Amino acid sequence: MEYRRVKDQESYDVVSQKDIESPVERSLSSTSATSSLSTAGASKGKNSWKLKSIVTLALTLLTSSQAILIVWSKRAGKYEYSVTTANFSVEALKCLLSLIALYRTWNSQGVTEDNRLSTSFDEVSVYPIPAILYMVKNLLQYYIFAYVDAPAYQILKNLNIISTGVLYRIILKKKLSEIQWAAFILLCAGCTTAQLNPSSDHVLQTPIQGWVMAIVMALLSGFAGVYTEAIIKKRPSRNINVQNFWLYIFGMLFNLVAICVQDFDAVMNNGIAVSMVMKYADNIVKVYSTSVAMLLTAVVSVFLFGFHLSLAFFLGSTVVSVSVYLHSVGKPQLQK
Amino acid sequence: MEYRRVKDQESYDVVSQKDIESPVERSLSSTSATSSLSTAGASKGKNSWKLKSIVTLALTLLTSSQAILIVWSKRAGKYEYSVTTANFSVEALKCLLSLIALYRTWNSQGVTEDNRLSTSFDEVSVYPIPAILYMVKNLLQYYIFAYVDAPAYQILKNLNIISTGVLYRIILKKKLSEIQWAAFILLCAGCTTAQLNPSSDHVLQTPIQGWVMAIVMALLSGFAGVYTEAIIKKRPSRNINVQNFWLYIFGMLFNLVAICVQDFDAVMNNGIAVSMVMKYADNIVKVYSTSVAMLLTAVVSVFLFGFHLSLAFFLGSTVVSVSVYLHSVGKPQLQK
Repeated sequence: MEYRRVKDQESYDVVSQKDIESPVERSLSSTSATSSLSTAGASKGKNSWKLKSIVTLALTLLTSSQAILIVWSKRAGKYEYSVTTANFSVEALKCLLSLIALYRTWNSQGVTEDNRLSTSFDEVSVYPIPAILYMVKNLLQYYIFAYVDAPAYQILKNLNIISTGVLYRIILKKKLSEIQWAAFILLCAGCTTAQLNPSSDHVLQTPIQGWVMAIVMALLSGFAGVYTEAIIKKRPSRNINVQNFWLYIFGMLFNLVAICVQDFDAVMNNGIAVSMVMKYADNIVKVYSTSVAMLLTAVVSVFLFGFHLSLAFFLGSTVVSVSVYLHSVGKPQLQK
Repeated sequence: MEYRRVKDQESYDVVSQKDIESPVERSLSSTSATSSLSTAGASKGKNSWKLKSIVTLALTLLTSSQAILIVWSKRAGKYEYSVTTANFSVEALKCLLSLIALYRTWNSQGVTEDNRLSTSFDEVSVYPIPAILYMVKNLLQYYIFAYVDAPAYQILKNLNIISTGVLYRIILKKKLSEIQWAAFILLCAGCTTAQLNPSSDHVLQTPIQGWVMAIVMALLSGFAGVYTEAIIKKRPSRNINVQNFWLYIFGMLFNLVAICVQDFDAVMNNGIAVSMVMKYADNIVKVYSTSVAMLLTAVVSVFLFGFHLSLAFFLGSTVVSVSVYLHSVGKPQLQK
């Protein structure tokens, strides 16, 4: 029951809908399949930077608009709808879109090594891993509420930002400059500040078990994200719709397993992050993008739903903005 | 009455005692007169950096311990004491200490052009300016409470950080790098975050008059600080005790005028910032130093007075820490 309550609160609390990132990313990658973007993967230099910017902007706007649309549909709704069913339908739709996009590619370019759906065991063997990681993380989500209440959990979820940065460094072996690390800590502090409310201080009473579980969950989620990036980028020439298709398949499979075990709609919401961002940008860009989307969502909600923004929100937004700036100016010297 | 209430609250609220900086700085410059530091002004390079660090550390620790001692003495006090009288006594004592330090210098080095007390009209004519600026600012403090309540004023005071940075750039024509500007914005956001409490959101209801007054007060305070630095640094070889003496004299004069006009103890608390920091470091270092002191004070108060730290405090502290780091790594390239 406690879990249900939290889920509902999250659905209405637009500002905190960070977990919603994944479906949007998938939708982004699916819809883009019909555009020319999907074939631009090999372009370098300025074009690559431009593509990265467009993809990042698109992800930010889509994440933000998705959160807003969900709240809107719930408020305007004449009849109840199940989040589980809605998410499952979206998943299936996207899997279908991947296939349609693939079909068009086959018609125009013919079936090649890079865009054929069939796959080797070597290639496909890594695809279930992110899905399994998310499943374990979401199973843990049931148990953490024995130690942590909902407002505190909202705050602890921001540990994801730090875990993503650390695992990005360790697993993908990509360097962030010292200033970019500073920016990343600021991003985490800024997002948390923006979400502060009178109940947030509960997090300070979190027992050690709660902290451990929160950290493990952050690591699982960060690992899943970074691992997905590694899979997608390992073979840059591979058609992204094929990659998405296989990730969706395993995601849906483990979701079904989880739903059978428990009433498990959260899995669908987290899902697997497969996206243009993963292929042409990275996990770091994803984290920034979704953080800015959270702020954008809150600002738009002021006009649409009459939300009141707190001083903490403005302070957090300032810190996040400076963090975005520092991330961009603080590029490692070697890359220049 | 409203004003009194605010003053009392400030005295007990250790975390927010940022206005208390000035007496400490003066005390720092006075006590240091008997040490060897006061004659080390001409040293360059590494020594100058070392001196700057020691002075900064001393200011941070003294600011912090002063705030703690005030709360302690008020809590432990067997009898009431007037803040006005206490401050005036401290002022007079420091003026006396400056004279004693000067007397020792005269005995050891003889009276020189740099350490004689007598002064030209040209030199002394600028000394009243900071005192006048602080007086005007403190007079405004009476009127701002018509538009702003106490918790909101506490938040608005952080505008001082930004005004100091801007005026430092304009008046002293010293450059901050882009990263140092970013760090400065973070310092302001971090300090404000650390001071957040459930009443802080009142600041969002501040009418335009309140904002204008707060900005004018921040500019006056920032201008006074930067102007004092300009006075002190204009003649580096001049004995700092002579400079302090003249600044104290005008400070006390305008304080007396203000006290006659109104019951005006706030003037004493703000006073004129004259210090080793001004001579050997700068206004920017002063701002960082007092900000860190504020955090330090709060942490020590946990152990001494059983204060509870909020999540906002930890977030604000994180942002301030990153800001300090960025300020130090982000030095303008030209200075390297």
